Amino acid sequence: MRIPKHIGIIPDGNRRWAAKNGMSKEKGYEAGLKPGIELFKLCKNLGVNELTYYGFTVDNTKRPKIQTQAFTEACINAVDILLKENASLLVVGNSNSPMFPKVLLPYTERKDIGKGGIRINFLVNYGWDWDLNNLSNSHSKNRNSIISSLNSHDISRMDLIIRWGGRRRLSGFLPVQSVYSDFYVVDDYWPDFKEQHLLDALKWYDNQDVTLGG
Amino acid sequence: MRIPKHIGIIPDGNRRWAAKNGMSKEKGYEAGLKPGIELFKLCKNLGVNELTYYGFTVDNTKRPKIQTQAFTEACINAVDILLKENASLLVVGNSNSPMFPKVLLPYTERKDIGKGGIRINFLVNYGWDWDLNNLSNSHSKNRNSIISSLNSHDISRMDLIIRWGGRRRLSGFLPVQSVYSDFYVVDDYWPDFKEQHLLDALKWYDNQDVTLGG
Repeated sequence: MRIPKHIGIIPDGNRRWAAKNGMSKEKGYEAGLKPGIELFKLCKNLGVNELTYYGFTVDNTKRPKIQTQAFTEACINAVDILLKENASLLVVGNSNSPMFPKVLLPYTERKDIGKGGIRINFLVNYGWDWDLNNLSNSHSKNRNSIISSLNSHDISRMDLIIRWGGRRRLSGFLPVQSVYSDFYVVDDYWPDFKEQHLLDALKWYDNQDVTLGG
Repeated sequence: MRIPKHIGIIPDGNRRWAAKNGMSKEKGYEAGLKPGIELFKLCKNLGVNELTYYGFTVDNTKRPKIQTQAFTEACINAVDILLKENASLLVVGNSNSPMFPKVLLPYTERKDIGKGGIRINFLVNYGWDWDLNNLSNSHSKNRNSIISSLNSHDISRMDLIIRWGGRRRLSGFLPVQSVYSDFYVVDDYWPDFKEQHLLDALKWYDNQDVTLGG
């Protein structure tokens, strides 16, 4: 089977999952932590080189405070859990904003965790416009200089994006790294993650041809 | 029913349609003209404000010459057909390249056709990196200045993108205007367009909530 080098993950549906299970919405984020580490281990064993998680966005921070606190805490906890593994970790987002958790600042430059290995990117207080706003400092106009001027320049092109929660949209997820990505949607909510979701996505991806727009 | 203000169209599958019907691949493009004008009329009657067709890209021009000639001709013919209608027409793409058909140069600034009306954007020799390469001349860094510095700045945010031909990817289609778009895929090839495809897409869209990333 052809394994994608880089998979982007949109772990959506936490609030709907909480509501479905009779909890208040913000309780859904904590339930997304276990799926996150399970998916990490599965991808690592399959030989995936790079994995990018869509944590939270600048758009998301306009939600009620009880929710923004809950998803920020879940992101901090997710990084904590990851620190026990072997990986090469990068946190990407607008770290000049008060919404960016200070405890994650050390990871805004890529760092080896344990023995290093699989590249894990975590988008935290990320915005598509924030990502593009450094292009005004670019001196040349070719494709490579555009990519190297992104604020997310250390995240490579994604081969496959998997979104949980049934919505078929990118919601601002890495507009440049997603231009050629194949996009697979799982209807189940993210906290209901099962290994089979990933296997189904990979089986589907294996049947796609890769043309890079050609 | 909630009608999207702006629909993006990725009319894919022309070559596969030709092969399926025992023709050489480049014959598929001409078969996409009738669907294009049918879709235009349907959207106009439904009250859609703006429609963007993905004609061809800079990436596509690396294909064999017999194909590049065929899809370029099909784009010219598509504009010719549209000139008999009422619309506000804009052709967007890298017009400094020899691959851009000279006969379409007058439409690289928006022009009323007939009595004007629905905005029709046609991407011709378009490239996502070409679209972003003017951001290096942007003087400020906010969302509006990024949008106004795009080479496609006269194309608005897309509410819904419909892709024919079964592939679930954007292939470089307007990376900024697509950040919040809902994405609907029709398995049939574009030359096999039916009104029902559009109606199914609109019915699906009517059930999506619009959050603009919030």
